Amino acid sequence: MPSTPQEKINGVNGTHKDRSNLIPFSSRLKEGRALAQDVWSIFNAANLPSDCINLGQGYMNFSPPQWIKDAAEEALATVAANHYSHPRGRPRLRQALKNFYDPQFGRELDIESEILVTSGANEGQYSVFVAFLEQGDEVIMFEPFFDQYLPSVTFNGGVPVYVPLHPDMTKPKITSDDWKIDFDELRRAVTPRTKMIIINTPHNPVGKVFTRQELEGIAAIAEEFNLLVMCDEVYETLVFDGKEHVRFATLPGMFDRTVTVGSAGKIFAATGWRVGWLIGPKSIIQPTLAATTRIVFCTNSPLQEAAAAGVEEAHKRGFLQTQLREYSERRDILVKCFDELGLRYTLPEGTYFILLDISSITWPDDYPFPESVKGRGRDFRACWYIAMEIGVSSIPFYCEEHVGIGESFARFAFCKDIDTLKQAAERLRGLRRVVAQK
Amino acid sequence: MPSTPQEKINGVNGTHKDRSNLIPFSSRLKEGRALAQDVWSIFNAANLPSDCINLGQGYMNFSPPQWIKDAAEEALATVAANHYSHPRGRPRLRQALKNFYDPQFGRELDIESEILVTSGANEGQYSVFVAFLEQGDEVIMFEPFFDQYLPSVTFNGGVPVYVPLHPDMTKPKITSDDWKIDFDELRRAVTPRTKMIIINTPHNPVGKVFTRQELEGIAAIAEEFNLLVMCDEVYETLVFDGKEHVRFATLPGMFDRTVTVGSAGKIFAATGWRVGWLIGPKSIIQPTLAATTRIVFCTNSPLQEAAAAGVEEAHKRGFLQTQLREYSERRDILVKCFDELGLRYTLPEGTYFILLDISSITWPDDYPFPESVKGRGRDFRACWYIAMEIGVSSIPFYCEEHVGIGESFARFAFCKDIDTLKQAAERLRGLRRVVAQK
Repeated sequence: MPSTPQEKINGVNGTHKDRSNLIPFSSRLKEGRALAQDVWSIFNAANLPSDCINLGQGYMNFSPPQWIKDAAEEALATVAANHYSHPRGRPRLRQALKNFYDPQFGRELDIESEILVTSGANEGQYSVFVAFLEQGDEVIMFEPFFDQYLPSVTFNGGVPVYVPLHPDMTKPKITSDDWKIDFDELRRAVTPRTKMIIINTPHNPVGKVFTRQELEGIAAIAEEFNLLVMCDEVYETLVFDGKEHVRFATLPGMFDRTVTVGSAGKIFAATGWRVGWLIGPKSIIQPTLAATTRIVFCTNSPLQEAAAAGVEEAHKRGFLQTQLREYSERRDILVKCFDELGLRYTLPEGTYFILLDISSITWPDDYPFPESVKGRGRDFRACWYIAMEIGVSSIPFYCEEHVGIGESFARFAFCKDIDTLKQAAERLRGLRRVVAQK
Repeated sequence: MPSTPQEKINGVNGTHKDRSNLIPFSSRLKEGRALAQDVWSIFNAANLPSDCINLGQGYMNFSPPQWIKDAAEEALATVAANHYSHPRGRPRLRQALKNFYDPQFGRELDIESEILVTSGANEGQYSVFVAFLEQGDEVIMFEPFFDQYLPSVTFNGGVPVYVPLHPDMTKPKITSDDWKIDFDELRRAVTPRTKMIIINTPHNPVGKVFTRQELEGIAAIAEEFNLLVMCDEVYETLVFDGKEHVRFATLPGMFDRTVTVGSAGKIFAATGWRVGWLIGPKSIIQPTLAATTRIVFCTNSPLQEAAAAGVEEAHKRGFLQTQLREYSERRDILVKCFDELGLRYTLPEGTYFILLDISSITWPDDYPFPESVKGRGRDFRACWYIAMEIGVSSIPFYCEEHVGIGESFARFAFCKDIDTLKQAAERLRGLRRVVAQK
């Protein structure tokens, strides 16, 4: 049996005739767990029953609005928007972003040096790591975390340092606000090698919208230890119940050390368009531009034009308000279902994810789990069991160090149409059968 | 005056109030010359006269065919093609690539493990470097070279090693076939740290289509020293005069150590779509998939569908033959003009570039060159002078070590419509005035 990823790929199992001849891949792939089987491969539709309702992966089963798609078609009809864009991004999109964000950031953003379009938020984040990390630089991230952060950091020589968000498990009902930072713990995580801290608000998968007070606590530490802050705000337009979304970059003194990450895919239900952006001071944006220019050269042009139309008209068409109301209704369908079942979950203040506490869900000892989930946390088995027996898929969530926290929860995505969610809720009522009696 | 790139960005010149507070960017940006002013910024339309005809940058001033754009619109009208694609690429595109390339590679390519869609050829190449380079690994590239190779290698810990292509300057007329590899020189460039060699055929900027014999010479060295070979073939469909385009991966034993790079942007006049692909053995594609998944997650979906339609129908519509004839006509316009002027140039066997020998072009000693070209090679001044005085822009080309070769040539791109090229030729006839009498 192959035991290392290198062996698995190089085909100890016999796909390759002459192993001695093969070129070894980089050790950074091992450090970044990039070759480990990820949750997306395990909980892939192909591995699950064909009629399973997919609430695992966070993509919409509906389209971006027609008026935005019209702008994509208009762009395709031109010559210029089928060719290279400036690596900074198309001027129309950067201007639209400036008009959209200036009031929110409370400053006049410079479209030449403070706004950078990237090939999705993901590539934007990767470019920041390329631009700033030296070998051995430590990057603090809160657990659970968006799984791409880990390899993106290690690929560029960084060392992840995990600080857990602690859910208050003493409460019978919790909201994402009950997931708290222990500031002493955060402070202890800082070392002379700490370069950067990643904040994600609204937070995937917890749904937490960091409070001004919490962000001020982080700001004090960033200031004291001169840290670069990446604030991933891709769910910025999905904050429920009138809760305030505070931008870290707007706290006193923080703009100069913060890069804020945004995503057209998340805002406009177009996850496959791969258009994102970064906002920050020239001292961060210019090195990051140098990085992204070499990684992708530029972002695709027609969908930048479409994203520009979206950003230009989102407010005047009332799109964001309508969308928020729709997402709130979607959230309520799952919330109501879990309430009826008496299951604990984290009521999300933002994002389109809800964490279900799966600790009371039980299965027969001899249940035929596949190898891919056997060696993993209890959450992997719970998600698999729910998908197979109930017909709704969810995913276990990424904790690298504080696995005990992740093991209690499964993430359900509600970025699906109402009918799908109602059908999913109907099936999930079957969880009654598999919940251990208290 | 700021003297280091760090100082330039961090604003010694006064844009930043508190320098002590700034976070230093990564040293890899300096190693990769990523912060040096590149030719694209110097010879940018914004710096040149507004009516200057741009033959500098290699993008088309015409659109991709309507039938391919129709496929993009059809994709936008679906739900799925607005959302995430599989990181490997959309099945339809991978299947189309298999059908297109199987006969050319003389094998049954596996769409799961031997074909990988990337966010442009550029990001595909970057991902290979991420996947394979260890700190200190040497990468051989032929000079002159596509400028993105250098930082893409150094960003990932690699060390570029340059081997020049030698033009035969004794001939009054030269073709790209007169640019030769000195195989002793190539062999001497190999060290115990050599990991990889980059071939670019058809070659940008020389237009050289490497002969089977030359590729066999490289293959022998790759085999002897167990090197990974990246064969950048993005101009594969632009080979003139019946010359044979030999795929390095089809040489005996070479498939297993070669990753071949392709580009929808180059084939279908859609440089802004950012859809490219890699073809190679599982031992190369799987680690590269792990890298690209973390860098961009996936490539934009609607334009993958469009590229798929292009690849599916390119042959049956006779698109490639027609396009090749058109490019041949475009090339001839510049060739005829340079012949009339009695100027030496490299007749390209492939690509849409032509190198003009600018050594006989002269300018007044006191010509007001901008600072950006003053400290650079003679080619920078020649390109600037031609742009300002003749109204046609070209670019100096990238040599890092063997600068003497690059200094004699300016690159003109002929991926422009016939009218533009005729107008450019008309202006270029004015070079008569500035050519030194022999």
